[in-house]
Amino acid sequence: KVLEEANSIAEKIAIFNQEDKNPYHQIKKKISEKNLKHIVTVARGTSDCAALYASYLFAKTLGLTTYSLPPSIITLENSHFDFSNTLVVVISQSGLSEDLVKCEQASRKMGAETLILTNNLNSPMINHANYFFNINAGKEESVAATKTFVLSLLNIVKLVAFVSNDNEILNNLPQLPEHINTELSEAWDPELIDNNISSGFIISRGLGYALSTEISLKFKELCQEQIEPFSSAEVMHGPRSLIENSFKLFTLSLNDSSGAGV
Amino acid sequence: KVLEEANSIAEKIAIFNQEDKNPYHQIKKKISEKNLKHIVTVARGTSDCAALYASYLFAKTLGLTTYSLPPSIITLENSHFDFSNTLVVVISQSGLSEDLVKCEQASRKMGAETLILTNNLNSPMINHANYFFNINAGKEESVAATKTFVLSLLNIVKLVAFVSNDNEILNNLPQLPEHINTELSEAWDPELIDNNISSGFIISRGLGYALSTEISLKFKELCQEQIEPFSSAEVMHGPRSLIENSFKLFTLSLNDSSGAGV
Repeated sequence: KVLEEANSIAEKIAIFNQEDKNPYHQIKKKISEKNLKHIVTVARGTSDCAALYASYLFAKTLGLTTYSLPPSIITLENSHFDFSNTLVVVISQSGLSEDLVKCEQASRKMGAETLILTNNLNSPMINHANYFFNINAGKEESVAATKTFVLSLLNIVKLVAFVSNDNEILNNLPQLPEHINTELSEAWDPELIDNNISSGFIISRGLGYALSTEISLKFKELCQEQIEPFSSAEVMHGPRSLIENSFKLFTLSLNDSSGAGV
Repeated sequence: KVLEEANSIAEKIAIFNQEDKNPYHQIKKKISEKNLKHIVTVARGTSDCAALYASYLFAKTLGLTTYSLPPSIITLENSHFDFSNTLVVVISQSGLSEDLVKCEQASRKMGAETLILTNNLNSPMINHANYFFNINAGKEESVAATKTFVLSLLNIVKLVAFVSNDNEILNNLPQLPEHINTELSEAWDPELIDNNISSGFIISRGLGYALSTEISLKFKELCQEQIEPFSSAEVMHGPRSLIENSFKLFTLSLNDSSGAGV
């Protein structure tokens, strides 16, 4: 089931590309008019990994600082934030998590505009939020929500490309499903990995670090292996002493300025 | 050495209490006049755990959103942030890390006011930054900088207590060394813990989660054990499936609203 759903990602992206009506232009307008200056993300689990990816991209490409708000700060504490000029981005596959619904409502009361990314057209949040992005990943039944994760990233990349007028990315999106299918045919052999070792690190940096947080979750959920994500800069400050023979060490190096340091 | 330095914390706090000349009032004035509305932290390793603690406390107590900026966004990317009305807080025991020195300079160029918390009176940053907090932990020689970590938290708690007029905390600070010495005499027996198990989670929430990130680093650096910090809310989204017999599970429950959920 997991593999079946993961293998359908290219097809889902093709459907997304055809049906996408997300209001990127409305958000672009607000940002260019300086009505939105700050971005706050609220999410859990896999969606929080997508939110971390978004925060690197917003910072790096748009120069907007992005704050990841632990939902408990709103649901457990009586916090009062000045959320004027702030876009609160809630990412939720189900669109139903009670604490995220509460965060969306409380954020609007504190002056925020809110954007919901969800895979569920019946989420109560899409009627209340200022903006709604349909992740459009199709029904997800396996535990590790890879389809939803990848489609969430695509929503975010497309938003950032629209706001920054990056036509190269926008023009290449139609070819993305084809690229993914090519990659699938060049999959590496999992037999290479020693099954007897169940702990380790995955080391990366920048946008790659955000991706490695989701890969770490996948190792935990699907392989019962504790592969902890670490920034290549942070790992030198102590955790390095853990690395020994019975330890897996993965690196994820992206083809950007962060990749050289990994 | 590690134990010796940890045991000297109460004494260092007493010295800090006597000698403290940190400019809490100047920052309080800027925040109350709304000249500082946003807080950004920049740090590495143990200091980054202190920065996470600070961000929960700024959010919870002062209603200021706090963004933890990965230094690479400034040192590797050509990011341009609008840092007006923003306080960039750099925490660095040595005060010498090249990437943090660069971040401090770049932040001021982008319009930020900067605050340096450092344990080194010879750091170049203290001459350039707008504000300088002397952590005043004394010389730290052991690998796990526990003294500096605890004194950094004290600097942060004192700042937040000043800004929020929390006289109860401020009046109780002189008794803190005595409380710590009482706690030391009630230390638990480390023999209780199974030495053959070297992986696990430490589960907490809110401010406790920030503390557990530092405890996790200590397990790695001093015990060569991979004890990964997890929020009690996040652990239900997948990682729970890892928990089995040969797995250590610690919980850290604070006596505040976050404690009930752990």
